[in-house]
Amino acid sequence: MLMKSAAQSLTEQLSARFAQRIRDRLLAPGARLPSVRQCAAQHAVSPSTVVAAYDQLLAQGLVEARPQRGFYVRETRQEPPAPPAPAGGAGPAAPPAGGAAALPAWGTATGAAAPRPAPIDATALIRGMFHQANDKPQPGMGVLPPEWLASSFMPAAVRKVVQGRGLEQFSLAYGEPKGDSGLRRALSAKLAALNVHAAPEHIITTVGATHALDIVSRALLRPGDPVMVEEPGWAVEFARLNALGMRLLPVPRRADGPDLEVMERYCEAHQPRLYVSVSVFHNPTGYSLSPGSAHRVLQLATRHGFHIVEDDTYSHIAPTHAPRLCALDGLQRTIHVGGFAKILAPNWRVGFLAAHPSLIEKLLDTKLLATLTTPALLEKALALCMEQGQLRRHSERIRTRLDAARSRSVKLALQAGCRFAAEPAGMFGWVDTGVDTDALAQRLLDEGYLLAPGSLFHAERKPSTLMRINFATTQDAAFWKVYARTVRSMA
Amino acid sequence: MLMKSAAQSLTEQLSARFAQRIRDRLLAPGARLPSVRQCAAQHAVSPSTVVAAYDQLLAQGLVEARPQRGFYVRETRQEPPAPPAPAGGAGPAAPPAGGAAALPAWGTATGAAAPRPAPIDATALIRGMFHQANDKPQPGMGVLPPEWLASSFMPAAVRKVVQGRGLEQFSLAYGEPKGDSGLRRALSAKLAALNVHAAPEHIITTVGATHALDIVSRALLRPGDPVMVEEPGWAVEFARLNALGMRLLPVPRRADGPDLEVMERYCEAHQPRLYVSVSVFHNPTGYSLSPGSAHRVLQLATRHGFHIVEDDTYSHIAPTHAPRLCALDGLQRTIHVGGFAKILAPNWRVGFLAAHPSLIEKLLDTKLLATLTTPALLEKALALCMEQGQLRRHSERIRTRLDAARSRSVKLALQAGCRFAAEPAGMFGWVDTGVDTDALAQRLLDEGYLLAPGSLFHAERKPSTLMRINFATTQDAAFWKVYARTVRSMA
Repeated sequence: MLMKSAAQSLTEQLSARFAQRIRDRLLAPGARLPSVRQCAAQHAVSPSTVVAAYDQLLAQGLVEARPQRGFYVRETRQEPPAPPAPAGGAGPAAPPAGGAAALPAWGTATGAAAPRPAPIDATALIRGMFHQANDKPQPGMGVLPPEWLASSFMPAAVRKVVQGRGLEQFSLAYGEPKGDSGLRRALSAKLAALNVHAAPEHIITTVGATHALDIVSRALLRPGDPVMVEEPGWAVEFARLNALGMRLLPVPRRADGPDLEVMERYCEAHQPRLYVSVSVFHNPTGYSLSPGSAHRVLQLATRHGFHIVEDDTYSHIAPTHAPRLCALDGLQRTIHVGGFAKILAPNWRVGFLAAHPSLIEKLLDTKLLATLTTPALLEKALALCMEQGQLRRHSERIRTRLDAARSRSVKLALQAGCRFAAEPAGMFGWVDTGVDTDALAQRLLDEGYLLAPGSLFHAERKPSTLMRINFATTQDAAFWKVYARTVRSMA
Repeated sequence: MLMKSAAQSLTEQLSARFAQRIRDRLLAPGARLPSVRQCAAQHAVSPSTVVAAYDQLLAQGLVEARPQRGFYVRETRQEPPAPPAPAGGAGPAAPPAGGAAALPAWGTATGAAAPRPAPIDATALIRGMFHQANDKPQPGMGVLPPEWLASSFMPAAVRKVVQGRGLEQFSLAYGEPKGDSGLRRALSAKLAALNVHAAPEHIITTVGATHALDIVSRALLRPGDPVMVEEPGWAVEFARLNALGMRLLPVPRRADGPDLEVMERYCEAHQPRLYVSVSVFHNPTGYSLSPGSAHRVLQLATRHGFHIVEDDTYSHIAPTHAPRLCALDGLQRTIHVGGFAKILAPNWRVGFLAAHPSLIEKLLDTKLLATLTTPALLEKALALCMEQGQLRRHSERIRTRLDAARSRSVKLALQAGCRFAAEPAGMFGWVDTGVDTDALAQRLLDEGYLLAPGSLFHAERKPSTLMRINFATTQDAAFWKVYARTVRSMA
């Protein structure tokens, strides 16, 4: 909220707030600023204050005015030194591709008669999820709060690993290409408890589950290959596959699994090479695959000859008996991916993949080309945490705590007028707000809350009234009060 | 050497040795085994022993016999479960692409009248460079021996970082997307000493220099883009760019820099988007860029609008005044990449890139899509090592030691009949042996020595009489004796 202060005028406060948001890319290039009237109403200032603030942004080169249309965030803030046209070239070079380009921001569509409020730039939002902007619990966060993850065994394990001469032994050479063998043994045992049978030599450690998914797509796919993804699904996965030049085929995710009719049509029309799936506690819906659906997905994979990468990131907070494609299939056409960011230490970036022996060499080559080896220190510490059963007991404690948080959060959400689009389960709630959640996210940023709007989980960032909430960070009545007030003002 | 023993017959020993090499991919699929006569002579056994050993390999399914041609390593050892033909498909699916496919193994060419000895599979060799197969110093290693890298300040820095509550603070959340800010400040100061000026916010930490190069190519290039690389150059770089679907344009590397005429022709014909270069102590030649050549490369980059990624991996053992493209250019079209595997702790996998502010967001997005963040523990420890000047003093000590090793190694190499194809400098020698180094590498593996044959540094793995030696691991007269004997027997 803006406040009269001697230090800074309301105009300065308002323009500084927009400037910051543009710099943080929470207002994407090409996005339209609210109309003067809207902005004045929202911030309870006079229209002339807004006009003066927008003029300051104009003077700073952060926005541009389009006659009859309003103010827009400038497409490029810091232009690279303009390359002269190639001497003998056939025309200007295409703009470089890459991650940012792969995240469509429809705020950049300028032809629309009534431009909708700017969506938040997806990677900016994802980065925002990485660290607390303030002390408030953040509903859009993708991980559990640090105080939930804290344990005494984690620091003890690290300190044990760095004692004595061991530290030098494993630090001063590149280390095992597949990753620390102790950790791979522990992972093999953990997977066996999930009925996924992989020998330590058929497991490869990675820089978090994200890197494992990256390795699988790079090893199995060529640019231009069609890939089936779940929708809603995780924005980083969409963006990475886009950036690698793959063609996304979004399969609607239902409560019991993917929409098999859509999958079948894709198989016949496009012969996809890979299907990327979160079977258990799917992000963002919390859905888990049914045994029947798992069986039919595998039948389809056999019939049409595609591989499946099963991202089991939420495995630690899930029951061991939950059906997994990898368990049914015995890692024939499936590749198992896991990590520890949701349960132990997000910053450690230790993940892994387990695959059929025939794929291991190719996957290992791809790891090698991207990062050579991975740091043994954290892998050894993780192995210690697993070997003593401490991680398993810690996971059980977190699961109990999450169950309690979920019931409290669901109650508050329902009281605030939300409808659950999916039966609440796991870490995330998939909630219908009744209003455009891109606009809602922009509004709640003003109040210090970061949301995860539905568009983030759609392959083409389609606007949505849905949003994802983290059950651990939405137990606070204060947030829901602000939420309900904002939604009412937008309805 | 094979030895008569009660435990294992000579046949069993010989077949076990080939089997191991096939499993380790030091004999690539499609490679031809030596003729019975050659093999018998080489191992000082009777032809019937060799025939019996090859028969065992045949029975194990590791090799196949081709009438009138000899024995070949089977193309695929562990076939994935054969996918049935797609039901409605237009034909069998293409084989998956990936790292391995990108490393051409001409052992697989089966039409040749007189097949040459099998080259060592490049990634297998690179993996071999990661860890000591035995106690002997390995001439083909890409890093300094662990005892050279050992220091007291490194373990002290790690132990300091994991003391107290700090460990939990940085472990339990994802951490800063750009990497630990303390390390980025230390890197900014280090770069300033090299006349490369980058603010901490324009530096991004990575999983080693390899990952930094990977991020740059993924952020700036699209599959199919032409990229200029140096030849000879580093196999991992060639393989990664190939696997990403880029078109390699190899530029001959001369003593003072790249062949500018070839570069100019490429620019006119292909409009390359990127040039990947090691300016200082180039791998494998040890060449360093001259100021005049640096200036002309940058002129070409400006005229034709391409970016340059400068891999400064060997920076720690190089004089600070060595000309660098990034220093001349002020990071306008250049991106600086560095790491610490050659000086401190190869397994830590801490690297970084520094770039123009206009590229940072795109590069950061690409890091995020590949690994999210990077582990802060090792970044913080590295920052401590740098801040106190300890790493700089350690580097000076290693430089002095390397100078002494180099003069000893050069003397021994010359005595063994080698010719230096490049003036010895830095960490590696680029040596002409007069014989095919793929065959030589296979022969010396039998003696327990891993070589880095010249083909490894050629974009198409062209056979070569050159090889790269590590000056730190070739000071041992015992190696050169075996080397000279083997070369004599091949001449």
